[in-house]
Amino acid sequence: MPNKKGFVLWFTGLSGSGKSTLARMVEEKLLERGLNVEVLDGDEMRTHLCKGLGFSKEDRDTNIRRIGYVAKIVARNGSCAITAAISPYREIRDEVRKGVEEKSVFVEAYLECPLEKLMERDVKGLYKKALAGEIKHFTGVDDPYEPPLKPEVIVYTGQEPERQSCARIMKTLEMLELAPAVADDDDYAAAEEAAVAARLKDLGYLG
Amino acid sequence: MPNKKGFVLWFTGLSGSGKSTLARMVEEKLLERGLNVEVLDGDEMRTHLCKGLGFSKEDRDTNIRRIGYVAKIVARNGSCAITAAISPYREIRDEVRKGVEEKSVFVEAYLECPLEKLMERDVKGLYKKALAGEIKHFTGVDDPYEPPLKPEVIVYTGQEPERQSCARIMKTLEMLELAPAVADDDDYAAAEEAAVAARLKDLGYLG
Repeated sequence: MPNKKGFVLWFTGLSGSGKSTLARMVEEKLLERGLNVEVLDGDEMRTHLCKGLGFSKEDRDTNIRRIGYVAKIVARNGSCAITAAISPYREIRDEVRKGVEEKSVFVEAYLECPLEKLMERDVKGLYKKALAGEIKHFTGVDDPYEPPLKPEVIVYTGQEPERQSCARIMKTLEMLELAPAVADDDDYAAAEEAAVAARLKDLGYLG
Repeated sequence: MPNKKGFVLWFTGLSGSGKSTLARMVEEKLLERGLNVEVLDGDEMRTHLCKGLGFSKEDRDTNIRRIGYVAKIVARNGSCAITAAISPYREIRDEVRKGVEEKSVFVEAYLECPLEKLMERDVKGLYKKALAGEIKHFTGVDDPYEPPLKPEVIVYTGQEPERQSCARIMKTLEMLELAPAVADDDDYAAAEEAAVAARLKDLGYLG
């Protein structure tokens, strides 16, 4: 019997869209507010749980299912699991959502960023390699990415500061009563409130 | 920041020694006492996290490391992870212990049962098949099992009732201050106290 409401905050978005960075930012905020948080990073999970898996559709699905399985366990024990894997396929994300929702809450956060912008930035030089054909099955280049249809929150990491994206996610968690609301001196915190409320209402939350 | 002390209760023992049964019995007791519990059963983990792995030394090690990884996450979030996998190799169990002990407590429970007894019972008919050579790499038959050298608790599932084994494990958790002590009307609960205290003292616990 967990004494806190566990949930999964599931980040999805292309490589370089800011999943890991935002995961760490949100983690810090949640820790400050007294929650237990476990970040399940895509790369780390591949090392521990998915060694040997490649990037075929089947292997990607297995990878995401495993991350989902661990996230579900963390959430049903009353903690917050933040996942930061590309998770390109809608069907598998929805399957994970269904499993998590048996006992806890699933919050999908879509990190929207135009492909051109990601290619331009290309922090790790991966897009360049993918475009040159040196990396095969690279999501967004020669492998599909299916954006979520009804994510609980969308952040536009190509055009807004990280702080604003983080504030919108935090506001979403507050409104879903998954994180305690605190007096936040970040200008964005207040500014995001109306838009977040409208979105969640549209999705059938907030009565 | 977990508000409860998380820990891993790691069962190890041959096939048929009673790991799953005892895991469920202890789970029930811990739930009654208000703890969060997650049973990580060997078979279930093989389905979710380790599909495709076989029974070679390397694959077994990977399997156990993955269970250990999930158990560690559960424990450091303040819950109790109970694992029920044969986990035949001492080195890997000790490696998992080390990882868990970074942030929480590791309690190794050895289910001792003579091989002859297990072959005699052979509930699932697996020993028969292994002895006939129909199953290869079967722990205890043609694959090694290395008993722990310093388990926190030993139960003798070949010669004592399950209730007694369960009481000894619970008493161990109580004395390690991992589970609240309660008035227990089970005769075994009181009877086990002195032996458990002596063992834990020997191992360097209990000041």
